[in-house]
Amino acid sequence: MAVGLTGLSKLLPVEGIRLSAVNAGIKQTERADVVLVELATGARTAAVFTQNAFCAAPVIVARQHLESDNPRFLLINSGNANAGTGDAGLVDAHLCCDGIAAAANCQSTQVLPFSTGVIGEPLPVAKIQAQFAALVDKLSADSWCDAAHGIMTTDTVAKGLSRQIEIDGHQITVTGIAKGSGMIRPDMATMLAYIATDATVSQELLQHCLEAAVSGSFNSITIDGDTSTNDACVLMATGKSTLPEVVGKTSKAYTLLEKTVREVCEYLAASIIRDGEGSTKFVTIEVLEGQSEAECRKVAYTVAQSPLVKTALFASDPNWGRILAAVGRSGVVDLDVDLISIYLGKVCIVRQGSRAAEYTESAGVAVMASDEIIIRINLGRGHAQARVWTNDLSYDYVRINAEYRT
Amino acid sequence: MAVGLTGLSKLLPVEGIRLSAVNAGIKQTERADVVLVELATGARTAAVFTQNAFCAAPVIVARQHLESDNPRFLLINSGNANAGTGDAGLVDAHLCCDGIAAAANCQSTQVLPFSTGVIGEPLPVAKIQAQFAALVDKLSADSWCDAAHGIMTTDTVAKGLSRQIEIDGHQITVTGIAKGSGMIRPDMATMLAYIATDATVSQELLQHCLEAAVSGSFNSITIDGDTSTNDACVLMATGKSTLPEVVGKTSKAYTLLEKTVREVCEYLAASIIRDGEGSTKFVTIEVLEGQSEAECRKVAYTVAQSPLVKTALFASDPNWGRILAAVGRSGVVDLDVDLISIYLGKVCIVRQGSRAAEYTESAGVAVMASDEIIIRINLGRGHAQARVWTNDLSYDYVRINAEYRT
Repeated sequence: MAVGLTGLSKLLPVEGIRLSAVNAGIKQTERADVVLVELATGARTAAVFTQNAFCAAPVIVARQHLESDNPRFLLINSGNANAGTGDAGLVDAHLCCDGIAAAANCQSTQVLPFSTGVIGEPLPVAKIQAQFAALVDKLSADSWCDAAHGIMTTDTVAKGLSRQIEIDGHQITVTGIAKGSGMIRPDMATMLAYIATDATVSQELLQHCLEAAVSGSFNSITIDGDTSTNDACVLMATGKSTLPEVVGKTSKAYTLLEKTVREVCEYLAASIIRDGEGSTKFVTIEVLEGQSEAECRKVAYTVAQSPLVKTALFASDPNWGRILAAVGRSGVVDLDVDLISIYLGKVCIVRQGSRAAEYTESAGVAVMASDEIIIRINLGRGHAQARVWTNDLSYDYVRINAEYRT
Repeated sequence: MAVGLTGLSKLLPVEGIRLSAVNAGIKQTERADVVLVELATGARTAAVFTQNAFCAAPVIVARQHLESDNPRFLLINSGNANAGTGDAGLVDAHLCCDGIAAAANCQSTQVLPFSTGVIGEPLPVAKIQAQFAALVDKLSADSWCDAAHGIMTTDTVAKGLSRQIEIDGHQITVTGIAKGSGMIRPDMATMLAYIATDATVSQELLQHCLEAAVSGSFNSITIDGDTSTNDACVLMATGKSTLPEVVGKTSKAYTLLEKTVREVCEYLAASIIRDGEGSTKFVTIEVLEGQSEAECRKVAYTVAQSPLVKTALFASDPNWGRILAAVGRSGVVDLDVDLISIYLGKVCIVRQGSRAAEYTESAGVAVMASDEIIIRINLGRGHAQARVWTNDLSYDYVRINAEYRT
């Protein structure tokens, strides 16, 4: 079903990163469901996590470990979120870290745990523990694709991208992977995404880079408006390239690096939407000429999450009245309806608050027939803008989410 | 599909109100699609309307007429919302009022227009005008059921209720009808609902009574989170009963009247949810022990509108992790997860933020098997509460809304 996604292209190794993926039997499939990522000594790690008040046990432990130590390993399991599991969940997350620390000879606080899958079931720790030796044994710089597959849940395709750039004659690699196709409306974070570079970057600058890249990518997408309890996005910099340390938020090297990380994040975020549960359309909502970015985002998200807009998109029906109704209820203060225009692709459907004189149903139908649609809403009251990616609401969305646990 | 609704019971006439319903051919069915309601001279009318910034032309005109004159007629058409139609829509709404005024010999400002149906299409005024004489001619005190059918769009059953009470030895009747089953998350109003009583009540007290009744009924329901451009709820008091004028917000007569109007509104609001597009479950979300009613409503609506919760309800799957995740992202400030309990019916599923020790999957499955489900969320941080009614998200919701215009 994934709209315009054609499987994983080749992912380039990042010097200083090794990965492995094995099947621990958490899910009832043959697919790998536990992934280990090793970072070279001296690597730096930045992360953003879910803002859901019910954050999962591994998120709590990962935050603590990240504050107290420099990560050497990320341990990620799919099939079970270890969320809503209370103190037992925290104990389980710590047991996982302890086990990797013992198998790989590092401190437990140097291991960051991540989980994704069903909420509220106890983590099958024994099954995961049984794989620690194999995970350490199989670590390889070339296993990015295996890792991308190992973190999938309801995803239908694995998601990843590599970019190489040259900065001052030094080659820099950025490779990222992500998973997610439901419970997607990240709030200051995303589902799970892991991006690595071989550049040398300070902890502070790396966090800045990650937050800049996440803002227009993972934090600008929605499938169902549901924010996961387990969202996390991690950016790692191994410092193994020959490029001297990247310093200064305005330097040419940093600007290039941030741009590349941003490109990888945008590709991964768009991939999550393209592979959104039941997706048949990839939809870009652009809101222009608002008074603030916040109000533009509010309008964009209200339209993107309207079940009526989403089912019209599924039906390829240019039912623009539903877009208009969603804009009207978005809660923007003092919205002057008479200043608003709405475009479907290049076709103006609403001008000054009512149907554009030149609009024809056939022109609307032609735009909606595509599986990639841009809805542009011009508020006519300022200079701010925002862009959100979303998808449609199909029978398959209901099927996937009605059947998920059965 | 309507959950627990068994068609319309007998609706009692209200002295001072006559109604008629005819087929004007707005919809491609044989059903009546235009309704006229006549109020006796001296009747008082209170109303609440949609808060959607894009409100429809008839809403604008009805508000104006209500401010300037005492209504004698309500003209309601289904099949076309006359929304997003700009100045032409306003002209059309005025033409309808003018036509009824001429046919019934009253002022145009004494007619309130209402429309419901597809947004953005021009109102077929000529078809409606052709029925004005017949509408006036057919007015009858016994046509409440016909009117309830005539205002339906995607509703599968007509919705109405009558109550009779005795106040100080005088009999008072309250009869109400409503329509709506999609684009339902009323905001200070509802889809279309018309309630009449033969009590004598001042304009001010009648408005107070309506707002009190709407708060816990039409303003506490959601199907898809979409607020219509055409929502309106009207309460009429004809003053034809023998009961002396009801005065004072604390009087016994007013208290009894308000209670009865509230009961009718609650029944109608629940009926809209029971007949919600694709409904297979009628779900009550109660949020208790919040710091304010506003935060309780925020939590209740977040859970009620979560597509993941709604698809789990459709599947009769006690996937309480999704409820927990929705509570967690509801945006309540300083929410302490460890104080929260969640019940499915009488079964405690979450205590102190994690799975209740005694919870078993089979107990959850037993509750979910019912088509009437109560989800109770105890925030453990105050004394406020709120209750919202909602339904599930089924294949049929997608089908109905993907096919609506085709």
